[in-house]
Amino acid sequence: MYLTNALLRSVQQSPDKLATLFRGRRRTFAELQQRVARLAAGLRAHGMGANDRVGMLALNSDRYLEYALATWWGGGVVNPVNIRWSAPEIVYSLDDSDTRILLVDDHFLKLVPEILCTARHKPLLIHVGDGDAPDGMLSFEGLIAGHAPIADAARGGADLAAIMYTGGTTGFPKGVMQTHLNIWASCVQRLAELPPTPGAVLHAAPLFHVAGLGRALVQFLAGLPHVIIPGFDAGEVIRTIEEYGVSETLLVPTMIQAVLEHPDFRPSRLRSLRRLVYGASPISAAVLDRLIEALPELELSHSYGMTEACPSISSNPPVNHGPEARESGLYRSVGRGGLGMLVRVVDGEGNEVPRGTVGEIIARGANMMAGYWNKPEETAQALRDGWLYTGDGGYMDDNGYLFIVDRVKDMIVSGGENVYSAEVENVLGRHPAVSASAVIGVPDERWGEAVHAVVVLRPGVQASEVELREHCRQFIAGYKCPKSVEFREALPLSGAGKILKRDLRAPYWEGRTRAVN
Amino acid sequence: MYLTNALLRSVQQSPDKLATLFRGRRRTFAELQQRVARLAAGLRAHGMGANDRVGMLALNSDRYLEYALATWWGGGVVNPVNIRWSAPEIVYSLDDSDTRILLVDDHFLKLVPEILCTARHKPLLIHVGDGDAPDGMLSFEGLIAGHAPIADAARGGADLAAIMYTGGTTGFPKGVMQTHLNIWASCVQRLAELPPTPGAVLHAAPLFHVAGLGRALVQFLAGLPHVIIPGFDAGEVIRTIEEYGVSETLLVPTMIQAVLEHPDFRPSRLRSLRRLVYGASPISAAVLDRLIEALPELELSHSYGMTEACPSISSNPPVNHGPEARESGLYRSVGRGGLGMLVRVVDGEGNEVPRGTVGEIIARGANMMAGYWNKPEETAQALRDGWLYTGDGGYMDDNGYLFIVDRVKDMIVSGGENVYSAEVENVLGRHPAVSASAVIGVPDERWGEAVHAVVVLRPGVQASEVELREHCRQFIAGYKCPKSVEFREALPLSGAGKILKRDLRAPYWEGRTRAVN
Repeated sequence: MYLTNALLRSVQQSPDKLATLFRGRRRTFAELQQRVARLAAGLRAHGMGANDRVGMLALNSDRYLEYALATWWGGGVVNPVNIRWSAPEIVYSLDDSDTRILLVDDHFLKLVPEILCTARHKPLLIHVGDGDAPDGMLSFEGLIAGHAPIADAARGGADLAAIMYTGGTTGFPKGVMQTHLNIWASCVQRLAELPPTPGAVLHAAPLFHVAGLGRALVQFLAGLPHVIIPGFDAGEVIRTIEEYGVSETLLVPTMIQAVLEHPDFRPSRLRSLRRLVYGASPISAAVLDRLIEALPELELSHSYGMTEACPSISSNPPVNHGPEARESGLYRSVGRGGLGMLVRVVDGEGNEVPRGTVGEIIARGANMMAGYWNKPEETAQALRDGWLYTGDGGYMDDNGYLFIVDRVKDMIVSGGENVYSAEVENVLGRHPAVSASAVIGVPDERWGEAVHAVVVLRPGVQASEVELREHCRQFIAGYKCPKSVEFREALPLSGAGKILKRDLRAPYWEGRTRAVN
Repeated sequence: MYLTNALLRSVQQSPDKLATLFRGRRRTFAELQQRVARLAAGLRAHGMGANDRVGMLALNSDRYLEYALATWWGGGVVNPVNIRWSAPEIVYSLDDSDTRILLVDDHFLKLVPEILCTARHKPLLIHVGDGDAPDGMLSFEGLIAGHAPIADAARGGADLAAIMYTGGTTGFPKGVMQTHLNIWASCVQRLAELPPTPGAVLHAAPLFHVAGLGRALVQFLAGLPHVIIPGFDAGEVIRTIEEYGVSETLLVPTMIQAVLEHPDFRPSRLRSLRRLVYGASPISAAVLDRLIEALPELELSHSYGMTEACPSISSNPPVNHGPEARESGLYRSVGRGGLGMLVRVVDGEGNEVPRGTVGEIIARGANMMAGYWNKPEETAQALRDGWLYTGDGGYMDDNGYLFIVDRVKDMIVSGGENVYSAEVENVLGRHPAVSASAVIGVPDERWGEAVHAVVVLRPGVQASEVELREHCRQFIAGYKCPKSVEFREALPLSGAGKILKRDLRAPYWEGRTRAVN
C-alpha cells in the first residue's frame, strides 16, 4: 500500500492540482487516479494476476507513470524495458522474468515482430499511443475507457514491486527484485535528506531507468507535479523548463554539458530551476565552472546509487559544490551514506578498511533489493549478512565522504549507461574469427568512457573492425558495442591466467584518474 | 538494523559532534556509541536475550536514550514505564509483558519494594544514577565500565522494538507492539515532511511517552544533538533553551502556557527557538495569540498521533498558524494525513463518509503498530484490513484537513495524558460503597479537561468525595483520579441500558466545543 497510498493522499488533499504534464496534455491528481484505477481494471481483465510481471517498452510520457501506478494498483509487478536494448536482449528479459503483458509505444513498434517471433511466451501486447492500436494489439486508451475503476490492491511491504534488469558480470542481464518497501524507503529517505523543491520536476532522463523512475516516485510521495518529455533533447529541456517553470530535474553530466553547449541556452531561460541532481559519473571541473557561472543560485546535488539499491546509496549535497569544495576536491565525492542507510568500505574478507584505503563499497538499509530474480548464486554474492556488495571500489575520508576510484565488477560507464565487459566479450566470442577478447573503458571527452575492445583473431582468419562492430550490433545495444577495436597477437595474462586488464588500460589512462563516479 | 544504523552513521560522519547534553554532561556520538555498545554487553551478560523486554522507570536524562539504544543494540525490546503510574499499574505492565530487567533512577527507588513484593517475576534491577547502586541492584555505570563493546545485533524490519503501554477501554492498559519498521518509518516520514531544524532539540516532555521518545529518534535519524532536562519545568525550559541555543522542542499546550506565564519568560531568551511542535490537544486562541505576539518568527506545528501509530498520523504545519488560519479556524485542525500515510473518516461499517461528516478516523501506513501484546481480540478490533481504527471521532474538510470533535473510545485528555473512563470506573467500582459510576471529561482552564466522576452509592451506605479520591489514588496514577465527584440517585440510561454520557457532559460543555485535538 505504500506506493498507491501516495496517489490516494494527493487526490484527498489536492484533487485538482496538476499531476502530470506531457506536451501540453495536463492531468490532475483526480484524473490520474481515475485513469490508473481504470487501467488496472483493464490489465486485470486481460489476465494480470497478483505478482504478474508487466513490461513497458516506450519513450517517456505521462502514460509511463500511469503504467507503473496501474500495475501496482492492480497487484502486478513492473518490468520497465531498457529502450536501448536490441530485440534479443529484450526477449531475454521477458523470458527470464516471464513477462506476459507488454506495453509498446509507436516508437518501438518496429521491434514487435522480432519479439513475437522469438519470445518463449508471446506476450499480450498493448499499444501506448493516441491513434488506433495496430492489429493484434490492445489499446492503452481503450482499456482506460472500457473499464470501471477497481479498488487498490493495497500492496506494500515485502510484496514485489519491480523487476529491473541490469547488466551482468556473467554476460547476461540480471533482474533486480525491488519490493514496495525497498522503493518506498528509498523515496522517503531521499525526501528526508533533500526536501523537495516546491514546483514541478522535469523527467528528461529515461523513465525505464531506476534513477528516472525513482525520482518520479519521490515526486509522487511528495504530491508534486511531473513534467515529462519523451527523452533527453537539450533544446526541449531548455524550452520545457522555461515554459513550465520547472524547479528541479535529473540529468547525467553529458546531458548537462549538452544543455550548456546548446545554441538556445541562456541562463535566464533556466531561471525557475532551483535544483539539478546529477548522477552516473562525476561532473567535470570545466562543466561545473560553466554551470556555476551561468546559474550561480542553482543547487547541485550528486546522487550515487544503482538498481540494486533502489537506487540511492549516497548523495553529495549542494553545499559541497561551491568554491571551497571545488578547491578541496570534495565536489568529486559521491557524498556520505544516505539517511537511514549505513555504508562501509571493506576488504576482500568483508572487514572495514581504514579511512583513505580503497576497498569495496557495501551498504545496508531498507532500500536494498530483495535479490536477483531466479539467480540464487548471484544473490548470495551480492547480499551478504544484510549488506549489499556494490562491486564499486572506493575510499572514505575522515568525515565519511565516499570517493569512488574503480569498479570491482569489470564495468564501463559510457554516457551514464553501465556496460559490463563480460557481456560484450561474450558477444565478440560468438564471431567465428575471434579467438579471445578483452573489453575495457578508455577515456572519452563526450561519454566519460568509451567501450574499447582488444581482440585476438584465430590463426589464419581475418575480420575488420567494422565487421566486428556490426556483429555486436545484432545482439546488444549500440552503447555497449565497441567504439574502437584493436587487434593483438595475445592478451597479457596474470600468473593465474587472468587477463590483466589493468595493463591494457594503463596507456590510455596515464596521467589521469579514471573518470568514474 | 534501521535504528542502530543511525547511530553508526553519525559516528562515521561526525564522531566528535555533540550527541547528548544533560545538565552540563556532554557526550559526543563516538562516546555515545561506545556507551551503548558496552551497556548492551552488560545487559546481555545479565540475561537479556533476543526479544527480551527491558523496562525503565526514570525521569528524562541522557541515560534514557542510552537505555533505549543499548536495548536495541543488544537485541532486546524496550518497555518504557509510565512515570505517573502507581506501583500496581507498573507491576501489571511488567507482568503482562514479562519484563524481567528493570532500570530505575533515584527518583523512583521508593517504588522498588512494592514492585519486588508484588511482581510475578522479580525483575533484575539496574540503578540509573551517579552514586553507588543500592543493595540488590546493579549499577548502570558499572555495566558500562565493566563490559567491552559488542557488535550491533542489527535488528530491523518486523523485529519487535518496543512494547509501550497505553490506557485501555477495557479498564486495563494494553501493550502496544511497535516494530523497528514502525518506528523507523514514523521517523523518516516526519523528517520528509518537516525538515529538521539545524540545532539541538530539547526533550522536556517525558521520554517514556511515545511522543517524547519518537521525537528523540527522529533526531537520531537526522544525526542532530539532544538537550535533555529531567522533566517539564517552565523555568528550566527557558534557561536551557537560552543557554544551549536550542532550536526545537515539543510541548503540550498546558506547558506552553506555563512557559508564557513564567516570571522569567522574555521573548529574547527563546531567540534560538525556530520551531515548537505541540500535541495532545489544540492550542487555545489566547495562548496562540500570546505566543505569536511574543515570538513572531517561531514555526508552530501541531502533531496528532497515538501510541498505536508509533506515533504520528497527521500534522498541521507552520503555515496554518498565521493570521489567516487563525481567522478561518484552520489552526484548530490536526492537519492532513502524513506523508506516506493515508487517513480516512469512516462510518460504523468502515465506509468513508462525505467530507464534513463526523465519523471515526482510521489510518494506514508503515508506522501503524503490529498489534497489542497478548490481546488478539483488541488487536482485531483496532487493526482491520490494514487500517488502524483510532477511536477518535472527527471530520475532514474539502482539502483533506482533519478536525477532531470527539473520541469514539470514551477517553479524557487531561494535561496531555489520556485517561480512559473505563479504567477509572473499574477502580471506583472496587469501593464497597459504590453501586455505579460514570467518568467524564469536563472543561478545565489549565488541563483542557478534568476527570469528573458521577457516582451512585449503594443504598444506605455513605462515602465522601475525599474518600473516593483516596481510594482511587491507591490503584491508579494521580492524573487519572477524579478531580471532582458528584453523587446522584441514578445514571441516565439509553433504551439499550447504556449510560448516556453525552447527557452527563452536556451541562458542562454548553456553548463550547469539547477541547480535544
